[in-house]
Amino acid sequence: MVGANKAENLLRARTKVLEAKDKGANVVVLPECFNSPYGVKFFPDYAEVIPGESTNALSAIAKDARVWLIGGSIPERDPSNSRLYNTCTVYNPTGTLVATHRKVHLFDIDVPGKIRFKESEVLTGGDKCTIVDTEYGKIGVAICYDIRFPELAMVAARRGAVAMIYPGAFNTVTGPLHWELLQRARAVDNQIYVACCSPARVQEPKEGDYLAWGHSTVVNPSGAVVATTDEAEATVYHDIDPAEIAHWRSSIPVVSQRRFDVYDDVSKVLVYEN
Amino acid sequence: MVGANKAENLLRARTKVLEAKDKGANVVVLPECFNSPYGVKFFPDYAEVIPGESTNALSAIAKDARVWLIGGSIPERDPSNSRLYNTCTVYNPTGTLVATHRKVHLFDIDVPGKIRFKESEVLTGGDKCTIVDTEYGKIGVAICYDIRFPELAMVAARRGAVAMIYPGAFNTVTGPLHWELLQRARAVDNQIYVACCSPARVQEPKEGDYLAWGHSTVVNPSGAVVATTDEAEATVYHDIDPAEIAHWRSSIPVVSQRRFDVYDDVSKVLVYEN
Repeated sequence: MVGANKAENLLRARTKVLEAKDKGANVVVLPECFNSPYGVKFFPDYAEVIPGESTNALSAIAKDARVWLIGGSIPERDPSNSRLYNTCTVYNPTGTLVATHRKVHLFDIDVPGKIRFKESEVLTGGDKCTIVDTEYGKIGVAICYDIRFPELAMVAARRGAVAMIYPGAFNTVTGPLHWELLQRARAVDNQIYVACCSPARVQEPKEGDYLAWGHSTVVNPSGAVVATTDEAEATVYHDIDPAEIAHWRSSIPVVSQRRFDVYDDVSKVLVYEN
Repeated sequence: MVGANKAENLLRARTKVLEAKDKGANVVVLPECFNSPYGVKFFPDYAEVIPGESTNALSAIAKDARVWLIGGSIPERDPSNSRLYNTCTVYNPTGTLVATHRKVHLFDIDVPGKIRFKESEVLTGGDKCTIVDTEYGKIGVAICYDIRFPELAMVAARRGAVAMIYPGAFNTVTGPLHWELLQRARAVDNQIYVACCSPARVQEPKEGDYLAWGHSTVVNPSGAVVATTDEAEATVYHDIDPAEIAHWRSSIPVVSQRRFDVYDDVSKVLVYEN
């Protein structure tokens, strides 16, 4: 659950990560925009440079919990150009910031009569794919709307990622249509795990509140949902099992059957890799 | 329903296409391997050069029914190299053969204890993407296992296709796992229609018979199943509506939001286009 009070959001994240560690988690994911309400009118006020209050807190959480922390996302202000980004920061278990992913594809949609949202009114898109090397395997990281573009997962998987993780906040319009479908699509096409972590839905919404879909989910390399929840605050758990990946890749060996003589390999070209 | 008797298979196809035309169809799709049992031991015996018995029959069917005919697929023998292919032929309403698609990705899978199939024991893969220009819009054509590789649909959609059509014969192992998921994935990622046409399942299978999944399906540009059936013989119908494509592309404009500065555009390179 994300509220308007940043300090409370950071404290809640700390509590939940430590709780997840107690239950055995080694890689923990927070939701998109976990320190701020999700809305273009909030981003300028909540934006921080890195390092700053929120990323310092995340570093301490990762270190204290001794986990890999995919720190959801925060509105980031880049002091070099004064631009704002929607940015995921990733920490290793010693609390070191090892990667940042700036949301590449901004969430600009307009479903008539249902939902209009234009991140691009205040945010700038990132310009790189992000892959993090952990002792549990390489993990591709992107944010929410990025999942609609198959290339980021294709690049990560073809460069060795075992999982693609998207902090994300779909809504009550696009959530039921596409949240699970897009995760299952990325998983089955690339035979990797896919996990999406959403904020919970506000319980007593006021006019203009963003209604997050919730339903944090993990999908396995065959495209099956193996852990999920509803719109309330919750933590979902699942193991990344290399044997499961190997099983699907030997059974249905698309990884070795691609025809790069017929079409180009999108993973050949990569702007930047962490 | 496909049986061992080629002449009967061709006659049944004719009956079904004329029936579909009577019900208003302008583009009709037959299933993969509609003139032959599906199995590597059958392909050499049933294979034909083009033109030949089956493609002459298809041409006559298209002309007599005055429809665009996506002629499922047949085992094809290329007299120039003696190789066999799994080939879809496409006819316009005057019966002219306007395109051929040789299955690019051969169906070689081995799910331990469940199903093993190796098309590559006797077949050669094709080497091109296929797009057909009709008065109802451009249509991308590929075959069955080709759907596991997102690139063919990406190429077709980015080059203007309104639909991707796959004659296909998934089975009772991979069908429940992936048949619908892969169609929905191709549709939502590319905001196009996707249709897969399967043979019906044999009703009293003998040892070694291929158990087709059936479930011919149409998915709309939002990734929703809009027409489907079960494993019995059936024809499913749906309209290709350009307004539906336009609605989704304006609501969720991924088509204009792709970031080809970050990753390559696979549709840039294309080996061959019909």
